[in-house]
Amino acid sequence: MRIGTCLYQGRTRIIREDEGQIVLLPEDFASSVMALIADGRLKEAEAVAGTAIASDAITMLPPVTDPDKILAIGFNYRGHLIETGTPLPDYPSVFVRFASSQVGHDQPVVAPAISTELDFEGELAVIIGRPAWRVSAADAMDYVAGYSCFAENSVRDFQMHARQVTAGKNFLNSGAIGPWLTTADEVGDPSALELTTRLNGAVVQHDRLTSLIFSVADLIAYISSFTRLLPGDIIATGTPDGVGFLRDPKMWLVPGDVMEIDIPGVGLLRNHVIAETPEAVGAGA
Amino acid sequence: MRIGTCLYQGRTRIIREDEGQIVLLPEDFASSVMALIADGRLKEAEAVAGTAIASDAITMLPPVTDPDKILAIGFNYRGHLIETGTPLPDYPSVFVRFASSQVGHDQPVVAPAISTELDFEGELAVIIGRPAWRVSAADAMDYVAGYSCFAENSVRDFQMHARQVTAGKNFLNSGAIGPWLTTADEVGDPSALELTTRLNGAVVQHDRLTSLIFSVADLIAYISSFTRLLPGDIIATGTPDGVGFLRDPKMWLVPGDVMEIDIPGVGLLRNHVIAETPEAVGAGA
Repeated sequence: MRIGTCLYQGRTRIIREDEGQIVLLPEDFASSVMALIADGRLKEAEAVAGTAIASDAITMLPPVTDPDKILAIGFNYRGHLIETGTPLPDYPSVFVRFASSQVGHDQPVVAPAISTELDFEGELAVIIGRPAWRVSAADAMDYVAGYSCFAENSVRDFQMHARQVTAGKNFLNSGAIGPWLTTADEVGDPSALELTTRLNGAVVQHDRLTSLIFSVADLIAYISSFTRLLPGDIIATGTPDGVGFLRDPKMWLVPGDVMEIDIPGVGLLRNHVIAETPEAVGAGA
Repeated sequence: MRIGTCLYQGRTRIIREDEGQIVLLPEDFASSVMALIADGRLKEAEAVAGTAIASDAITMLPPVTDPDKILAIGFNYRGHLIETGTPLPDYPSVFVRFASSQVGHDQPVVAPAISTELDFEGELAVIIGRPAWRVSAADAMDYVAGYSCFAENSVRDFQMHARQVTAGKNFLNSGAIGPWLTTADEVGDPSALELTTRLNGAVVQHDRLTSLIFSVADLIAYISSFTRLLPGDIIATGTPDGVGFLRDPKMWLVPGDVMEIDIPGVGLLRNHVIAETPEAVGAGA
């Protein structure tokens, strides 16, 4: 099943994709995708009857709008290690993105006014299904609710300001997630997936998930060794090689660009880039 | 004013310290300290009548229990730069702690079962008073609600696993914040403060806040350049020299230790260290 969240007639609603058709679930079914996950009711959403609606009647939001935490992984594809000259790591490199740095599918990604160095990073995101603390890699996949596509876009000059990358990874609306939470039973083994990032139609990143240094199970095991993963938490699993700042000449995201992350079996996340305005980052709110 | 949060008779309540006496504020006054800050009603809490209670009748919680985000700063005291051999930075180094890694005053800090390297870091915490985005350093102090003491304790082996320090900074209940949010009007200029960390009564860290490389105003300006600070957000401003892992021999926190962070004018945060059990980290919850 593919389930998500949107704005429809000014209200936040749960939607499902049924063979390309968007179906609005009844408001009294559940308050949010997060609540469905936390209450162990995700399976029920497959069968509930809804109302087919046109895609232009809605504004897509991140499939889980209010995760407790979003953890992202650096240097997790062999190709990206090679292009950055990074030795094979012994442990995952974990940083944090706030929910305010991601928009939903088809919504504008914002190129910051104070930097020209917004770079693309296509990633597979894992969405956690139940509380996980000190979970072994052997058991870890039981804790996955599903998957999504993640534009883990980075403002490179701010990322390099200091050893910790937080600043460059958290510009308002600089990244994206979606369109859907595709459930784990539909995806099966995530290492069988392939990921392609396209910029204005041209392939800029392509790799198979078998290239991950730390698998989805490894990441859940490691992260749950120090913190407690909660339902709806998100792990962005790292990006393949091909990122813009290591190209010659460098390739930055600029207003007007269209970025796509295509993971067959999970979804196709498409976003266009706009210039920052106070409205675009909700600064009036 | 010093205001905080506690558990009292199984309920989360707002408390105020009046000349050493703990005063329970009425439940219908406000739902939380966060709500008081967000609604611009912190000042009203000074005058509201309450009920004096004994300190042993309550369990202290972090003064703001549910911040949207907690940002911490690495390498921000000259002495700590020298002891770590770190060059003077051009920008603040920002990382993230989750609320689950802090307990309140007088509550047990948990030494992880999977590491022996829990280290102390005494810090001044800033608590944000209103939304801040692209705020200049000249205006930044208008966005401060108040201050607290922060035990930004670190699990050094996990911190060093990778370039990003997230793992070592986020063990459940490894740090602490409190006892109070002391309001900005009571504190005045934070650079006039002094910070002392004591371990089992012995001074292990001592410095003046004039030693900060990036001042409170600088930090708010920098962080608000990439993200939006929200009411209740916390900035842990960095630790002075004297940390345990750079001593010879190294000095780790072990069960039975008592750690104090004393910032006259702000508060005295005291916590004892216990060994990890599932109950101590709420793993049964």
